Amino acid sequence: MNSLGNIFRLTSFGESHGKAIGGVIDGCPAGLAVDLDFIRGELDRRRPGQSELTTSRREADCVEFLSGIFEGRTLGTPIGFIVNNTDVSSGDYSNLRETYRPSHADYVYGRKYGIRDPFGGGRSSARETVARVVAGAFAKLALRELGVEIRAYTSQVGSIVLDRPYAELDLSLSESNPVRCPDPATAERMMAFIREVKSAGDTTGGVVSCVCMGIPVGLGEPVFGKLHAALGGAMLGLNAVKGFEYGMGFSGVGGRGSELNDAFYVTPEGKIRTRTNHSGGIQGGISNGEDIYFRVAFKPVATLLMPQQTVDIYGNETTLQATGRHDPCVLPRAVPLVEAMAAMVLLDYWLLSGAGASFSTRTLTR
Amino acid sequence: MNSLGNIFRLTSFGESHGKAIGGVIDGCPAGLAVDLDFIRGELDRRRPGQSELTTSRREADCVEFLSGIFEGRTLGTPIGFIVNNTDVSSGDYSNLRETYRPSHADYVYGRKYGIRDPFGGGRSSARETVARVVAGAFAKLALRELGVEIRAYTSQVGSIVLDRPYAELDLSLSESNPVRCPDPATAERMMAFIREVKSAGDTTGGVVSCVCMGIPVGLGEPVFGKLHAALGGAMLGLNAVKGFEYGMGFSGVGGRGSELNDAFYVTPEGKIRTRTNHSGGIQGGISNGEDIYFRVAFKPVATLLMPQQTVDIYGNETTLQATGRHDPCVLPRAVPLVEAMAAMVLLDYWLLSGAGASFSTRTLTR
Amino acid sequence: MNSLGNIFRLTSFGESHGKAIGGVIDGCPAGLAVDLDFIRGELDRRRPGQSELTTSRREADCVEFLSGIFEGRTLGTPIGFIVNNTDVSSGDYSNLRETYRPSHADYVYGRKYGIRDPFGGGRSSARETVARVVAGAFAKLALRELGVEIRAYTSQVGSIVLDRPYAELDLSLSESNPVRCPDPATAERMMAFIREVKSAGDTTGGVVSCVCMGIPVGLGEPVFGKLHAALGGAMLGLNAVKGFEYGMGFSGVGGRGSELNDAFYVTPEGKIRTRTNHSGGIQGGISNGEDIYFRVAFKPVATLLMPQQTVDIYGNETTLQATGRHDPCVLPRAVPLVEAMAAMVLLDYWLLSGAGASFSTRTLTR
Amino acid sequence: MNSLGNIFRLTSFGESHGKAIGGVIDGCPAGLAVDLDFIRGELDRRRPGQSELTTSRREADCVEFLSGIFEGRTLGTPIGFIVNNTDVSSGDYSNLRETYRPSHADYVYGRKYGIRDPFGGGRSSARETVARVVAGAFAKLALRELGVEIRAYTSQVGSIVLDRPYAELDLSLSESNPVRCPDPATAERMMAFIREVKSAGDTTGGVVSCVCMGIPVGLGEPVFGKLHAALGGAMLGLNAVKGFEYGMGFSGVGGRGSELNDAFYVTPEGKIRTRTNHSGGIQGGISNGEDIYFRVAFKPVATLLMPQQTVDIYGNETTLQATGRHDPCVLPRAVPLVEAMAAMVLLDYWLLSGAGASFSTRTLTR
Repeated sequence: MNSLGNIFRLTSFGESHGKAIGGVIDGCPAGLAVDLDFIRGELDRRRPGQSELTTSRREADCVEFLSGIFEGRTLGTPIGFIVNNTDVSSGDYSNLRETYRPSHADYVYGRKYGIRDPFGGGRSSARETVARVVAGAFAKLALRELGVEIRAYTSQVGSIVLDRPYAELDLSLSESNPVRCPDPATAERMMAFIREVKSAGDTTGGVVSCVCMGIPVGLGEPVFGKLHAALGGAMLGLNAVKGFEYGMGFSGVGGRGSELNDAFYVTPEGKIRTRTNHSGGIQGGISNGEDIYFRVAFKPVATLLMPQQTVDIYGNETTLQATGRHDPCVLPRAVPLVEAMAAMVLLDYWLLSGAGASFSTRTLTR
Repeated sequence: MNSLGNIFRLTSFGESHGKAIGGVIDGCPAGLAVDLDFIRGELDRRRPGQSELTTSRREADCVEFLSGIFEGRTLGTPIGFIVNNTDVSSGDYSNLRETYRPSHADYVYGRKYGIRDPFGGGRSSARETVARVVAGAFAKLALRELGVEIRAYTSQVGSIVLDRPYAELDLSLSESNPVRCPDPATAERMMAFIREVKSAGDTTGGVVSCVCMGIPVGLGEPVFGKLHAALGGAMLGLNAVKGFEYGMGFSGVGGRGSELNDAFYVTPEGKIRTRTNHSGGIQGGISNGEDIYFRVAFKPVATLLMPQQTVDIYGNETTLQATGRHDPCVLPRAVPLVEAMAAMVLLDYWLLSGAGASFSTRTLTR
Repeated sequence: MNSLGNIFRLTSFGESHGKAIGGVIDGCPAGLAVDLDFIRGELDRRRPGQSELTTSRREADCVEFLSGIFEGRTLGTPIGFIVNNTDVSSGDYSNLRETYRPSHADYVYGRKYGIRDPFGGGRSSARETVARVVAGAFAKLALRELGVEIRAYTSQVGSIVLDRPYAELDLSLSESNPVRCPDPATAERMMAFIREVKSAGDTTGGVVSCVCMGIPVGLGEPVFGKLHAALGGAMLGLNAVKGFEYGMGFSGVGGRGSELNDAFYVTPEGKIRTRTNHSGGIQGGISNGEDIYFRVAFKPVATLLMPQQTVDIYGNETTLQATGRHDPCVLPRAVPLVEAMAAMVLLDYWLLSGAGASFSTRTLTR
Repeated sequence: MNSLGNIFRLTSFGESHGKAIGGVIDGCPAGLAVDLDFIRGELDRRRPGQSELTTSRREADCVEFLSGIFEGRTLGTPIGFIVNNTDVSSGDYSNLRETYRPSHADYVYGRKYGIRDPFGGGRSSARETVARVVAGAFAKLALRELGVEIRAYTSQVGSIVLDRPYAELDLSLSESNPVRCPDPATAERMMAFIREVKSAGDTTGGVVSCVCMGIPVGLGEPVFGKLHAALGGAMLGLNAVKGFEYGMGFSGVGGRGSELNDAFYVTPEGKIRTRTNHSGGIQGGISNGEDIYFRVAFKPVATLLMPQQTVDIYGNETTLQATGRHDPCVLPRAVPLVEAMAAMVLLDYWLLSGAGASFSTRTLTR
């Protein structure tokens, strides 16, 4: 259950304050050029300590590749990698050893396993996502060769909402501010709000929106392997996610079919397309060639720097005053995670799509 | 990809107008008493033709069990079953043979496979869900012995929303009206709205809410097998679903951690519980013993009984005037589907939970 | 665990004396022409009652397809099928209800599940293999289009051994006699031996050899998905199998590398081949383009028509005198089973091979 | 395909001359005491350079654990580990860069992936098995607590065969000599033979036998998950293995059922056992409580230190004179590998057995 994917498959490991976070990427196509600068750049986007808006933990997050790459290209064999944990100050967590943080995984891990690593959340820490970013970077490199581009951005922080459709936004601006919102004015308001909750020792949540462009017709498998089910399952596997919607989402269900159906037409080049895209690029679980877009809801971070009522591991009620270094809002750092998960799922389904496709398209020749 | 689950596993088959819909349930615990009346009752809840609100297709939906049951109890071997398709009037679909319905799976199936069954949507038909209801009924029977109860209900149809929390509702009333809304007054308004869109040849969508009670602490697997990720992936695998949220969901992300964290306390019996349940019964992907609740968004049915712009299989633009028998709104019939999917996931994770649990709890003895 | 395969995947169900044996074939390529006569012919090869050498149980073994086929071609959707059990005389097994047959699965099923179907061996009956033959027939049809041919034959019955290499045999003669041995003289001796053990109420075992021709270079996945590991695992999943060897097998291990290595050379057409084939067509777990050949050992049938010491379900020692209809030797009927399993594995790995293959060979185009 | 197991699951990575070999163990029960000395001892048994009989490559084979362990016990989270490659002399392999070794994986890897790591066999090197030994050591530690003991030994080298049944041998003597044969006199002859082939630049093969004691009734899943099918598939996944047989194996198929059936009886303590064990501890794919024993055939090592006819990567015939450091016979080092694979499979099936077992044995309590 620490593996994700069918053909392109990440197995991850690592606790927050253990020696290293790492993973194994199996099923990456052979011969792919490994752009190390790109991978490092993706890690930097996830890295803590990027700005005042995120945790002050400082990790270099240098990835070391141990296998699967030869002379700059993937071998088709598993890519093992590790990212060492360097800035580990377990002292910050001494009071968490015997106390469960409210709305955190501490309690359920303790009950499920009978043992847990209390430092920095152990396996339940968001630090685990560093492995996802590495695997996602490989998936992005492969998808780039296939003409696919994935762009996520922050569309809500607290009650501050960017409610314009993605087509009206200049998504290239997302990386121009620390909160990763493509609208500079909204970004300013979001940052101000994060600063405010941080100064109060409080936290907040938000929404990441994501657009996947250049997907061919035919990705997705009936009936339990629908493409959006795989995307949704992957996103819900990110820490703090409480919801997923794609295309018209929750807001569209109140409408009528006559308003929301996407009429087909034929382009001058003879390509079948839809005039609208309420479907979100997926129909019947299979991509239809239009943009795939979806939204992911992240709850406020559970660890607060203020007193909270809770219980200790002996079953006594107590008050917790957490210390340590924590993000007041995961949104800025969640953007690259959403992209990474989307990339892994899309590449995996691309590779899978050979399977259910027409017999005449089998590739292996004698 | 026509299988769902790890230990408790359904493999389904069948096209809408083929001979039968069926499936194989693998991994059902041995020795479970098979309550045939209960299973039939679950199928009746899903069955078309229950009321004026649903499609007029009439199927007896009698399930025939072919294996895995002996003298009224499960054998632990796979349970094969079929439900024959009897009311098959393919003539209704003759114009769909060469024309793609907008926002339907017709086009993508045709492109992906190079061949498709045009009658009644083939494999993409909602009729496929009959297999899920059968498997879900077995899961419910097993969960009932474990003290788990699952209750879904319609909480939105079109713009008519039942926005009270489930704790304030009498969920036993859900089955007292055709739309399966536990609030009778709201149910009346929903039914009136469905009648209206139906008379216009149009369709609408809505939301199903679901509550799972009696779940123990410890179901769910880190990091890619989070319990809510499995639930969400399963729900998104239902036809027409556009979104999933649990606990505080999308609406909660705007709040602050200090408002939304669930404080732990100790009951007089010494049990650890939370004072609120914004988490939705799952923390860090693992159940915490509180009620699990979530919401599932269903889009308006794609097949309209009014003219729509589309293309045919030869790539020509055309107008489609669908006939046939279709639901104007899937919500009433979606309620038992949501319950069935939830039951399958919860039982599967219950059976899985032995695996990651503490070593001292292994059961098999010499 | 009642499913086999990764992409091409059979899920089977059914007890010997239940209503039906059946299965679901998922992942069969779309557009494949379904040759019903061929499928029926394969079932006839497995069918009981073919000759005096096999059980006298008479089953028509008519397969009924319920889904996945449209106008004579596969849809790419799951193919559900059933084969009814018609000649069910449970009375023959009344004494087996309370008594465990030695070397049979009765005892372990009873202990593992706490409940079992005692009639005809229930799920552990060889009758379960009818589903494998159906799925194998589809795999053979697909492989035929890819130029692959699979030929199994009986190479040992009791102590009568056909010890000539397959290249010296006319494999087309295998089907010319009931024991399926391609050497007519040896076949006569085998048949005489089976008659002898049958008349004594006893049973015997033997070996099935199999050759797969026309396999391309590149099937098989490192490191746990080696092609021969998949073939061996599949063969060991057949009832009564006690061993599997391929290429030089057990007899080759005594030799030296200098005698057994297969020297590479280049054909006039520029193709790389090996001068010998001690490797059995697989090197490092991946097919090398030469014939794949292997041998499968089947033990004597466990059910004897003579008294045996055993225990009953209450834990008392007793003597069992089995009645019922049983094969004295599974070999004749095992030949099509070995072919079916080989076909399923080879097609599955063919479909999988897209995944690990070079990036430049990806097929899906926009 | 670089993962093995269902619940207890190893994912391995690493090339022979890459930075490290490593793996991730998922699903190891929580709370298991990690005996580091035992793990190191197991690695030492596999390590090259143990004696004059094995390759002179010298690797310390120190394992570094990166996650999943806390204060000496397993956390239930994935255990990531690496073993650095230190004695890497790629220069020895320069002539292998452009030439395919006969009967080695070089050629098929090159063809399958279009790229390969030529140094030391890359991913196809036996060095990959170091990860299996680590995972196997954890499985052994868990099985030890469950009362299971696994003992493998060399029973054949070249034509020198130890043909006495294991019950007549003192298996504790296996580790007293470098060839790991429990009969000292036979061991001497085996060692002399290995020295002889080594001095000739040649290689040889052999057989490893293995006994698993203390297995409870009920491990194994019908029909495709038979316990011996899992064991056989795992053994066939070891490099150089050409065959697997258990219980009576190939040699038993010539007998009669009346000779080979294992009569049941009741012990004075009321336990059901069998008087003989031709079944090899498994009936119908499920363990019956008797010892499980099997044999694994290893072919002669492919890399010879003498000239061989072959082809180069450009398709030209050539002569290869391999250098580098190679085992003349894998048998001595294969013994711990067979044990490791057996341990992984048995623990995995033990953990799985909760799933199919009787409903009344479910463990998780509220």
